[in-house]
Parts: sequence; C-alpha cells; structure tokens
Amino acid sequence: MKSDLLSNIYNPADLRLLKQEQLTEVAQELRQFIIDIVSVKEGHLGASLGVVELTIALHYVFNTPEDLLVWDVGHQAYGHKILTERRENFDTNRQIGGISGFPKRSESIYDTFGVGHSSTSISAALGMAIASKLKGDFDKQHIAVIGDASIASGMAFEGLNHAGVTDANILVILNDNAIGIDPSVGALKKYLTAVKNGKNPKQNNIIKSLNFDYSGPIDGYDFPTLIKELNRLKKIKGPKFLHIVTTKGKGLQQAEENQVKYHAPGKFDASTGEIHLKSEENLPPKYQDVFGLTILDLAKKNEKIIGITPAMPSGSSLKFMMDEFPERAFDVGIAEQHAVTLAAGMATQGMIVFCNIYSTFLQRAYDQVIHDVALQNLRVIFCLDRAGLVGEDGATHHGVFDIAYLRSIPNMIIYAPLNEIELQNILYTSQLGLDHPIAIRYPRGRGVTSNWEVENFGHYEKIKIGEGKCLKKGTKTAVLSTGTIGNNVIEALNECTNSESIAHYHFPTIKPLDFNLLKDTFSSFENIITIEDGTKKGGFGSAVLEFAAENNFKNKIEILGVPDEFIEHGSVLQLQQLCEIDVKSLIKLFSNGVK
Amino acid sequence: MKSDLLSNIYNPADLRLLKQEQLTEVAQELRQFIIDIVSVKEGHLGASLGVVELTIALHYVFNTPEDLLVWDVGHQAYGHKILTERRENFDTNRQIGGISGFPKRSESIYDTFGVGHSSTSISAALGMAIASKLKGDFDKQHIAVIGDASIASGMAFEGLNHAGVTDANILVILNDNAIGIDPSVGALKKYLTAVKNGKNPKQNNIIKSLNFDYSGPIDGYDFPTLIKELNRLKKIKGPKFLHIVTTKGKGLQQAEENQVKYHAPGKFDASTGEIHLKSEENLPPKYQDVFGLTILDLAKKNEKIIGITPAMPSGSSLKFMMDEFPERAFDVGIAEQHAVTLAAGMATQGMIVFCNIYSTFLQRAYDQVIHDVALQNLRVIFCLDRAGLVGEDGATHHGVFDIAYLRSIPNMIIYAPLNEIELQNILYTSQLGLDHPIAIRYPRGRGVTSNWEVENFGHYEKIKIGEGKCLKKGTKTAVLSTGTIGNNVIEALNECTNSESIAHYHFPTIKPLDFNLLKDTFSSFENIITIEDGTKKGGFGSAVLEFAAENNFKNKIEILGVPDEFIEHGSVLQLQQLCEIDVKSLIKLFSNGVK
Repeated sequence: MKSDLLSNIYNPADLRLLKQEQLTEVAQELRQFIIDIVSVKEGHLGASLGVVELTIALHYVFNTPEDLLVWDVGHQAYGHKILTERRENFDTNRQIGGISGFPKRSESIYDTFGVGHSSTSISAALGMAIASKLKGDFDKQHIAVIGDASIASGMAFEGLNHAGVTDANILVILNDNAIGIDPSVGALKKYLTAVKNGKNPKQNNIIKSLNFDYSGPIDGYDFPTLIKELNRLKKIKGPKFLHIVTTKGKGLQQAEENQVKYHAPGKFDASTGEIHLKSEENLPPKYQDVFGLTILDLAKKNEKIIGITPAMPSGSSLKFMMDEFPERAFDVGIAEQHAVTLAAGMATQGMIVFCNIYSTFLQRAYDQVIHDVALQNLRVIFCLDRAGLVGEDGATHHGVFDIAYLRSIPNMIIYAPLNEIELQNILYTSQLGLDHPIAIRYPRGRGVTSNWEVENFGHYEKIKIGEGKCLKKGTKTAVLSTGTIGNNVIEALNECTNSESIAHYHFPTIKPLDFNLLKDTFSSFENIITIEDGTKKGGFGSAVLEFAAENNFKNKIEILGVPDEFIEHGSVLQLQQLCEIDVKSLIKLFSNGVK
Repeated sequence: MKSDLLSNIYNPADLRLLKQEQLTEVAQELRQFIIDIVSVKEGHLGASLGVVELTIALHYVFNTPEDLLVWDVGHQAYGHKILTERRENFDTNRQIGGISGFPKRSESIYDTFGVGHSSTSISAALGMAIASKLKGDFDKQHIAVIGDASIASGMAFEGLNHAGVTDANILVILNDNAIGIDPSVGALKKYLTAVKNGKNPKQNNIIKSLNFDYSGPIDGYDFPTLIKELNRLKKIKGPKFLHIVTTKGKGLQQAEENQVKYHAPGKFDASTGEIHLKSEENLPPKYQDVFGLTILDLAKKNEKIIGITPAMPSGSSLKFMMDEFPERAFDVGIAEQHAVTLAAGMATQGMIVFCNIYSTFLQRAYDQVIHDVALQNLRVIFCLDRAGLVGEDGATHHGVFDIAYLRSIPNMIIYAPLNEIELQNILYTSQLGLDHPIAIRYPRGRGVTSNWEVENFGHYEKIKIGEGKCLKKGTKTAVLSTGTIGNNVIEALNECTNSESIAHYHFPTIKPLDFNLLKDTFSSFENIITIEDGTKKGGFGSAVLEFAAENNFKNKIEILGVPDEFIEHGSVLQLQQLCEIDVKSLIKLFSNGVK
C-alpha cells in the first residue's frame, strides 16, 4: 500500500513530528509530488529534484520560520513551497493569480526573501543575521542555500567577504551540482570539482581563507550525515559554510542525464520522463534562435565577431556559435558586470562584440554599460533577449525597464525590431560598424514569420539607424509603436471597424528618434498614441513627449505601456491584458477613439 | 647639483634608454614632481606616490603602449600620465579643458581603458588579452594594476574567475597597501594581511586556487626585485598574478602617516606636507556632514537605525556614526551590490537602514535596488551623496542619471532637498517610517545655511512626502525646480529685473509628484520651465511632461538640466555654465522670457 506521509504535512512543524527514519519516505513522496505536478503544469524541475533531501533536512533540523531560510535564485524551492503550507495550491504554480515560481515574501512567512535573480542570498541572510544579533537574538539561525553557479557571481563573493569578518550566525550551504541552467564554468567551478574529487586540497581553502567554519563536501542524499552535520552546525556561532554534493534532476533518470533540457522541460510523462514534444512545423522561430543562428552565420563571414553570454548559452541560443566557434563565443558564468566590461575590453582592440544579456539581467551591469562602454563610446552590441513581459517567471524577470534606463545614457543607440527580419537585419547592420554602442531589445518567445529560416536566412539588408516608417496610413490619429508590440497594433487595426482614421508608425530606433518622421506625424495628426511593452515612466512614450515639448507641438498624446507597478506572473497574453496593450484592448481603444 | 632625468623623459621609450641603476633617481624626481604639482593644483596624492616605483618598472620592462596597461580606478595613475607624454600639461590636471584626473582613452594612446569606478581592470585587460590572441598576437602582454580594496569587489572576482580558465596573457598586479580611500575591510583583506605577514599560508592560496601563476608578496620599492620579477613574468604565458606590497603616500611623511586625509589633501606645503587649512568659520556645512551628524543624532534616539556605506565612511561622513555606534554602522568595502541587499535583509527584520551610496556608484547596484528592495517594497533609505554635477572628478563621477534610472522603478520615493534643513528633515521623516523605499539625493559640497549646526541641529520637522511648495509668486511663467539647483533659481530671481512675472515652485519629492500643485500651476501659468541637475532624458522634467500629457495640459514647457552627453571635468560652476543651469544663464533666460 502506498504510504502517505506527505499529505499529513501542512508545514514544517508536522515534518518535525516524524522520526528521522521516515524522512526517506517523505523524500520519495515529495519527489514524486513535484514530478507529478510539474509534468502537467510545467515549471522548473531539475533544481528542486536535486535538493529534496536537503530541503527536508533543513526544515527538520532548523526551527523554520523562526530560523530564517533564504533560497538563492529560487528555482530549487518547489519542495520548500510544498512543505510550507502550499502543497494544496502548488498546482497553481506560475499561473496568473497562483503561487509564484520563486520564493516571495508576500506569499508565505516561510519565504524570508524574494528571489529570482541569482547570488543575493548571502547578502540577504547576512543582513538578517546582523539584525537578529542587534535585536538580542543570539540563537536564531540564518541560512543561505546557494548553487555553485550562483556563488561564482561577484555579488556572492561580496557577501562572503563581509560575512567572514562578522560574528553573525550565518550558515552558507553550497549546493554543488556543477550546473546552473547550463553547466557551470570558471576557475572556482574547476576548483570545487577538485575539492569534490578529493584532490589536494581536500578541503575548500578558498572558503576557509575567507574565515568561514568550513565543512564538507558531504553527500546531499545521505540523510543521517546531512542531519548530523546540520545539527552540529546549528550549535556553532558565527559564519559557517557547508559544502554538499547533489545531482540536478535527482530521481528522474532522464532529468539526471539531460540536465539542461530538464531544467524547465515543459510538459512530460511523469513515469517515463519523456517530454511531450509539440510540433514546431510552420511555427515562427523563437527570437532567441533568430539571434543565435544569425550570429552564427555572420560569424562565419566575419572573424572579428565575438559572442558573450553570462550563463545563458541555451536561453540565448549563443550555443550555436559556441559549438562552431568555441574560441570566439564565451559563456562567462553568472557575471553580467564582467561580461559587459570584458566586451568593452575586446572592443578597444577592434573586435565586434555581441554581448547577449536578458533585459532584466542587464540591470546587473548598468554601471558597466554607462562607465565602461557608453562613456568611451565603444561599439559593443548588446542583445537584450526577454525584453518586455516574459510571462510565467513573473515580476523578477520582466524586461520592462530597459528602454527607460538605457535612454538616459548618452551615446547609446536603442533598437527594438518589429519582427524576425528586422532583428536579423539590425544584427547584420551592427556588425558592419555603427558610430555608437547599441542595445537591441527583443522578446521571449516566437516571432511572427512562418518558414523564417527558409525564406529569409542569409538575405540581409542594411538598416538605417534612426529611421522610422509608416506601416499604415490614416487621417486623425497616429499610433507610434516600437518593437514587437507593434504586431498587436497591426492585428488590432486589421480587426478594427474605424481603422481608416488611424495611422500606424513603427519606430524601431528608440534612440535616436526619427525627428523628421515625428515632425510630419505631429503636423498631420490630431491625436498621438504611443505604445511599448515597457514601463510608461521614462520609456519610449516619454521620449516622444520630450520631442513634442522641444518642438512645441500641442497634440493630444496618450502613452500606452506597462504601468508604474510590478507586474506579477501569468501568460504574456494575460499580462498584456492587464496592461491593456493586448490586441483586444487596442481594438477597444481604437474603436472608442482616444480619451 | 640637482640631477634632471625626468625632464628628458617624454614617453616610456626615453625611460627605457636609461640604465636600471638610474631608476631610483627617476623615482625621486617623479615623486617630487607629483608632490610639487598636486600641492598647488590639488588632486589625488597618496595613491600615485605609493606606486611611483611600480609605474616606472612597468614602463621600463614592458613595451608600452604596445603592451597594454590598465590602471584600476586610476587615482594612482599620475606617475603614469607624467611618464607618458603628459608631463608638460600635468598642471592642467582636473581643470576644465585640461587633462583628466583618471586615465582616459581619448587623451592618450597609453591610457588603454578609461577608469574612475573601481574593479574594472581585470575584465578589461582580459578582454584585450583574448582579442590579442584571436588576432594572432601571442606575445603582447596585458596588465591590470589593482588595489587590495578594489580586488575585493565582486566584479574583480568575476574577472579573476574567468581569467583563471583561459590561456590569455594577462598579468594581474595586486597593489596591496591595505587601504582604498579609507582602510580596506573584509575577509580577503584580513587574509592578504596574513599572507604579507608571512603567516601560514605564506602564499596566496585563494589566487592559486583560481588557477593563476602566483608570485609574491614582494616589496614595491625594491627596484631590482620588481624588475627581475616583471621580466620573468613577461615571458610566462597565461594568467599570472603578482602581489606587491606598497605604502600609500610613500615618500611624504605626513601622507604616509595620515593616509585617509592625504588621499586628496587639497593644497599643501610641498616641503613639509602641511595642509593649507581654509577657514571654515561661518561657511555653510557640507551636505555629507549634515547627513553624517544627523544620522548620528537620530541613531542615538532610535536603536533600530543602521548605517551602511560601501567604502566611503569619510566621504559620506558615516564615520561619525561608525565611531560612536560601531555595531550599527558598517563599511562593507567596495561592494555596492552587497550593500543594497544587505540593507534589504536587515529591513526584513524591522531595522531602519540608511544605505549611503554616491549617486554614480548606485549604478553598480541598480538591479539590487529594483529586485531586492523595490519589488519587495522594503523601506530601505538610500542616501545618494554626490548627486548632480560633482566637478573635478568628471565624467565618470557625475551623479546625473539617478532621477532617470530610479524614476521608472515602481514603489520608489525620490526626494531631493533644497537645502540642509530639508535634508535633515527628510532623514528624520524617513526613520519615522514611510510606506516605500526612498532615495534622497543631495550634492557634493556645501549647503547654503551659515551656522547650520548651531541654529538647526536637532530641531526636526516631519515632511509630507509628495508635497511641493511655492517659493515665489508670479504671473506668467512658473519655474519648477527640484533639489539644490533650486537655489540657483532663487538667486537668479533675486537678481532678475522682470522677476515679478516669474513664479518659483520647489518639488522636493520627484516621485510621487505633487499632482495637485502641478494642476494649479499648469492652470495658472502660460509657460512652465523645469530645472534639475540631472539628465534631461527621462528625469524630473520628463516626469512633468508625463503629468501634462496625462492631464491634457497644453502649456509651453521648457526643460533645463544636463544635456544628453557626457559632461567632462571642471568646477561645478563651470559645468553648470556648460549646461546653462548656473545663475547667470538663468538670469539671461528669465530676462528674455522662454523661447
């Protein structure tokens, strides 16, 4: 008969009522529970499977939520969510109105710190630990669980460097599985591997040198050892570091064997692990593949082309170039700051560098974009994948600030293509040599052109920077769009009854704006509507307002975009509806005329 | 008779004609040259004095500018500038139109990478080294000289972590003097000190563990050893690391003994080292001291108050609180990312955290402000010193982007006081508890209130967030200002002949704006002028335009501020003139009426 411990665990207090011998059974049930739900509802799989035992051991040994547990990134926190009062609504994971795919403070008292971007856990846990001491609570424990990919990021080092000279009760647990989303890279990874393999030095001297009480490496699936060690560490004051060895995807053979694919596999067969493949025939390509295949094609013809990704070779599709030109395509790990300045250094020597960073992650290298690239006017080509609303990853991952934060930087060109062909052409144009650095922003997901590869691949056209174009004529109102959200405008105008009065202009170059086209437009139309899939505060619409003020135009201007609030998770369509930039909302707006 | 080697050295080729025995003499002359000029013209002293011998040795051994030399931060690069074709105009250092206080690519072929912010050198040099290899140049050397304060920053770790797994010809030289601007902190510093003191481990295992060919520590003033070691390293391929020990201020007794003060001492007596003190009697206070003394006073009354600075205890004046409440005031080193998320962690536990970061350096923690603070709506209080134009430090250091980059972040309050009293009151108000995180921006330099401390200290008034005020009535034109630049408006209106037509409104809260006051203003005045000491692209003026568009106002609006270009170095007044936001420019504008 199937045992049933998990369904009696509402929260960790219930877990702590069990005997230690029962934990293996809990682990089995928890692992199966994760597999069963994620196989149907989708989500991040491998990371959580890897830490099932650790998750149980932590909540068993420590007095959560009194003791404070911070999960780095949060991909691995599904087990934690299920054990902490969210088993019953775990099937709403990542859906609109449902629980978040990441730990989130407003969702649960057990989620002590919201995560999503990597390498924040040590700093956050240290802040909590120092606060506890100041409040006179000397027994509370503060635990950061961080992976080997995340700990190699500079911010994590900064946290370790500070923690090591405090007497704060912080326990850093290195969940070492040798992989982030893609396999880990870098000198630290190499060193950790040597430590794990028992090579000299057997212990982790880097961490010990930073003044931590270091223990490990230990097996992350050996409950007795795990629990004994956590109990020992619980009694030790000051900064501690436990190195545990795990396997991403643990317990599902296919996930263990193909860790990149099973990071977030989509729907799959819970018993066999087989991924349910959707037919991709006749589907438009993913924008990331348009980037990845185009850059590969261009790199074949121009040996000065270099590609850089901070830990997203699969997600960015730079892997195509990495496979073919490993000496010119670099995965530098979760190191956005380094990635940007590395690109700048290369650019000083005449290389043509495509630095591909998700829009939300470029926030990590904002200073480097300003100080190392734009100030020196180096011609780095930033490719900002996942710009705009990204969907299920939610508030931590939407790329909605980039237009606003890049637009204020002198020397920058900002470009947002309408479709795959424009993306391809701007990549081509960029490597011909521009006068300035450029940021090319494009969204997650698929484009709009079926059979793209066959029809369009390799036929490039040089783009004139700073030139907008009229996509549709009209009489009274002009809609000015930038980027792929313009496709919603096209669709809405196609379905609109009064579309003859509405013109549509596309501004792929957000900076510099096409002032001539704007002057014509403002002179010819009574009403102006701008639309972008980014924040309305300081974005494309704001740039148009600045133009209007400078040129003394008095037209009525309405700005559409993402409102001044953090947008939660849901499908892209649902989130566009929320922001009223989906096709239906636009049809309604166009039909009613502007306010 | 005084020897005269230096004046025959135009560039390093001349230096390399000398015998090694003559270098000591060159060092003596170079050190004296730096002291003579900086004592009169002001600038950064201690760092450059410390590396005189290293600078000479590097240009003597390596074939600059063919070999590429990157100075981290650049405070220490005066000797480098003097030896590389800039001896004769070194007396224009940091003056408008003169040479920059930092290495700058557009200034000299010997300045391979522009610096100013710390910890970029390893990434930049690695980028150059990889590019050289790809271009088939396997002998070129690429050298990053980085201090022990800068190498502790996360970005430097990212660079090391990548470099260690390449075969690029990069030489990292650690200039270890145990101090940045203030004394270095952190576990790595402690470790490096142990290494220097010959304690076990004698060699730097952290660096060796990251796969570098490590040598040192060696004496940075021992020419034979330095030159021998550099010659040896020149022949070794791949990543190398040389640890040298120096003394900041070397050769000027007072500078060695008081390293913080002599980082940038102002004018001093070249022979005795005595600093020429200016009388501070009746001068208004520095804004940094208003912060430092107020936070100290508030911390005495509220034990939940915490202060954090990333490596600027003196510059921010947080040192007052650090001296009195060392357990609640933290210098975390050059680690802005960590500083912000540490603050966030503390805030989750109910502490009231003042995180003081120069405006330009908060760019380093942009993602942490968005992702760790604003998204979770944690009530961290950011104090942005050196906001606006900072003067002689120039383009790398102006705090002109903050309004634009913070304004697009949901949940943020942005506040820019007019004067010391408003700064004090907003600090007081913030610790009473606001609904959101807040960024308080204030400039470098002195305020406008004489006898501030005596008259105003300790008398706090609670500020109403989001409330602007009328400073002067008028009839036709309303000037809307934010922050201390409003004092220029006050002064200009006092001196203006037609001032009766011009009203002046002060908006200390940039976000949220005072919509009611704006509505009144837009309804009552024909023309609106906005003014800020930040970029015009996306800043305060842009926020006012967004308001006008949303509310369908058609007033003529002119935006004054920093234009969309990088502003070089010069006095603050000269730079304000450049941006046409100085008093005289405003008088002219107000007298002529708006365009």
